[in-house]
Amino acid sequence: MSNRSSAADVLGSDAGKPLKVALLGCGVVGSAVVRLLTDQADDLTARVGVPLELAGIAVRRPNRHTDVPAHLLTTDAEALVTRADIDLVVEVIGGIEPVRSLLLAALKSGKSVVSANKALLAEDGATLHAAATANGVDLYYEAAVAGAIPLLRPLRESLAGDRITRVIGIVNGTTNFILSRMASTGAGFAEALAEATALGYAEADPTADVDGFDAAAKAAILAGLAFHTRVTAADVHREGISEVTAADVASAAAMGCTVKLLAICERIAGPEESVAVRVHPAMIPLSHPLAGVGDAFNAVFVEAEAAGSLMFYGRGAGGEPTASAVLGDLVAVARNRVSGSRGAGMSAYADLAIQPMGEVSTRYHVALDVADKPGVLASVARAFADNGVSIQTVRQEGRGDAATLVLVTHMAPDSALASTVQQLSEFDFIRRAGSVMRVEGMPTD
Amino acid sequence: MSNRSSAADVLGSDAGKPLKVALLGCGVVGSAVVRLLTDQADDLTARVGVPLELAGIAVRRPNRHTDVPAHLLTTDAEALVTRADIDLVVEVIGGIEPVRSLLLAALKSGKSVVSANKALLAEDGATLHAAATANGVDLYYEAAVAGAIPLLRPLRESLAGDRITRVIGIVNGTTNFILSRMASTGAGFAEALAEATALGYAEADPTADVDGFDAAAKAAILAGLAFHTRVTAADVHREGISEVTAADVASAAAMGCTVKLLAICERIAGPEESVAVRVHPAMIPLSHPLAGVGDAFNAVFVEAEAAGSLMFYGRGAGGEPTASAVLGDLVAVARNRVSGSRGAGMSAYADLAIQPMGEVSTRYHVALDVADKPGVLASVARAFADNGVSIQTVRQEGRGDAATLVLVTHMAPDSALASTVQQLSEFDFIRRAGSVMRVEGMPTD
Repeated sequence: MSNRSSAADVLGSDAGKPLKVALLGCGVVGSAVVRLLTDQADDLTARVGVPLELAGIAVRRPNRHTDVPAHLLTTDAEALVTRADIDLVVEVIGGIEPVRSLLLAALKSGKSVVSANKALLAEDGATLHAAATANGVDLYYEAAVAGAIPLLRPLRESLAGDRITRVIGIVNGTTNFILSRMASTGAGFAEALAEATALGYAEADPTADVDGFDAAAKAAILAGLAFHTRVTAADVHREGISEVTAADVASAAAMGCTVKLLAICERIAGPEESVAVRVHPAMIPLSHPLAGVGDAFNAVFVEAEAAGSLMFYGRGAGGEPTASAVLGDLVAVARNRVSGSRGAGMSAYADLAIQPMGEVSTRYHVALDVADKPGVLASVARAFADNGVSIQTVRQEGRGDAATLVLVTHMAPDSALASTVQQLSEFDFIRRAGSVMRVEGMPTD
Repeated sequence: MSNRSSAADVLGSDAGKPLKVALLGCGVVGSAVVRLLTDQADDLTARVGVPLELAGIAVRRPNRHTDVPAHLLTTDAEALVTRADIDLVVEVIGGIEPVRSLLLAALKSGKSVVSANKALLAEDGATLHAAATANGVDLYYEAAVAGAIPLLRPLRESLAGDRITRVIGIVNGTTNFILSRMASTGAGFAEALAEATALGYAEADPTADVDGFDAAAKAAILAGLAFHTRVTAADVHREGISEVTAADVASAAAMGCTVKLLAICERIAGPEESVAVRVHPAMIPLSHPLAGVGDAFNAVFVEAEAAGSLMFYGRGAGGEPTASAVLGDLVAVARNRVSGSRGAGMSAYADLAIQPMGEVSTRYHVALDVADKPGVLASVARAFADNGVSIQTVRQEGRGDAATLVLVTHMAPDSALASTVQQLSEFDFIRRAGSVMRVEGMPTD
């Protein structure tokens, strides 16, 4: 079949033996994959060189899937992924087990795999990649990060001749919707979450989204690809948005910023190069391209040495957008199969250490309600100095016998900032330690 | 060498025989390519599987290139591209001839080609693609459109399972700088152009940029890839920005818009599907993601049926960003060479007709200085109705015995809008036909 390698230039009607596709899972994304495979069949054939034939769909409860051909449905996923006639396996079930075992079985049986499973890739991508390499097959997962936004392919292919220094992304639509509503309406977290739930942007149990687990898995995948090293979800420092208050959001607005849940992956220079990967809410200037990314949209900002700043923007979730990314991968692995080659695997040759969060350089925004009396500012400034943190700006707003003191620091190790805040909390003239939040994306960073 | 296909997972020190690279041209981009090939040598070896060795550089005046190894320089580009030891040819000369002949010779000699040449690809990409296919080699040109922004690869690979309906881009940094300055300072075109020239954003002869030739070449390439059909620069309706006035820019601002030079590629439904490709200044709402793309940045907004709206943003020009895109392509074609495969070629199977500009649906913004007397609005409205154009909004501002009438139409064939404007110009109560400009990207479009 190697003479078919340029078959994408010919019409489907001339094409050869179909490639057979097994689909694992048929929920919102899976149904959209089935629909696209049918609706776009001619285009897909033209692009791949041979037709793609859906040959089996593994589901738990076949009687719930009346919209797909009944003869394709099976509950025996294990048998399906190793069936001799299957060439390609598409997985849209999610979760760690039994999916890991199924995909390992598929790879070991010589099937190429397309997955949308961020949790699995973030937890144990290395094992899956090793199985793909050992068996000479492909493992693609564009849909696992930022849905339809082409991101993993640009990172691992388009920028392959460049050196990525930083990736900053809004990669969770639920939390971005909540924070966008808090910013536009002044609502608190609980109220905005309730609205997100009512509109279907948040699940009944919103933990994975609001506590940052979803974003942390994506951050691990992004960091691994960007820096050619192994990063798992456990390596990611993670803070969610449930403690972000309306006061934080107002305080951000007052300094020309907005609050976003950011996934930040950085290459840290030094005698031993390392990487830092973290997910936390942060204030970013309104002038930053990520500040304008509202509602449930996702966007990822990439800085590379030669390319400069790049941004990728689009829908990060939903059945159709995710299915679009799955199909793009499916075409790629199918083309590779037709030409007898493989795509770029995961390259983890750099093997970089993970920098502990305490050593990561960040800057803090600290708002304090203080008694308005002499010596307060001096004491506060002394606390910062004691911890080796220098202050970039101070703004004081008097209010009768009280005042609000808003400080933004220069870059300093996160542990020094944390211990400064701890020290401040012990002063008796501080009536309330208000907003404490990291600030990212300043023009000087 | 096919057992090296997964060699990107190993360290360069284990790697095999180098792939030899010939570089055509060594100006700003070429020098940056040489630098990246040297600085990133270890990373490139790890990603490709074997080292990339720069084996020759064709230039016109070797004595001007003191920063590259003298023994690599040659004035005989023709001999270099067919030299038996060369595997890959990188072209950063630009222009049609002699580059077309050189690249055809290279492809026919079995070399894979990476080019940054938008003019050549837009004029005669089909011939080059046919030569690449016939000889089983690759032709990649990510750097030809929007510099470092990964765009062509996402269009032709990531979205391969989707159906792109529209591409709207700001793809020329010079004109975007000029229009951004006009918007922020109120300057006229000539003044802003002079500033762009002084700052090095515009060339001494700015024709290719300000008259839209550069953007039209890029639009042709984008449309061809997005819709899998052949589009050349001659198929693109082209209007530049030299007639955009400070009044147009002010008029745009008054209606919550900004003026951008847009490259617009649309798939037109109908009994016979067709494509429309055009480059012209247009007003777009400030809420549109492209409106915030300032200075010399580029961005491309893509709409696909399943993926929804996507945007790609970054630096569209400059030596380093362009070299980054060239290197990404070089890694891809080198990997293909190592594994004995080819990447996705140009797929022109759709073979769609080009819709003439007169039939393209657009909307117009028309500002008229009129005598403020009875019957004027009725006559103006009649002119629109006579041409079958319906009006979306009318705004009238009185100024003594005169008034300014600002109309925005609904979508209508461009020829109907043009003849409406022609008819308006014949009314004697119109003192001055002010701003006439298309409006794009309205939420209802």
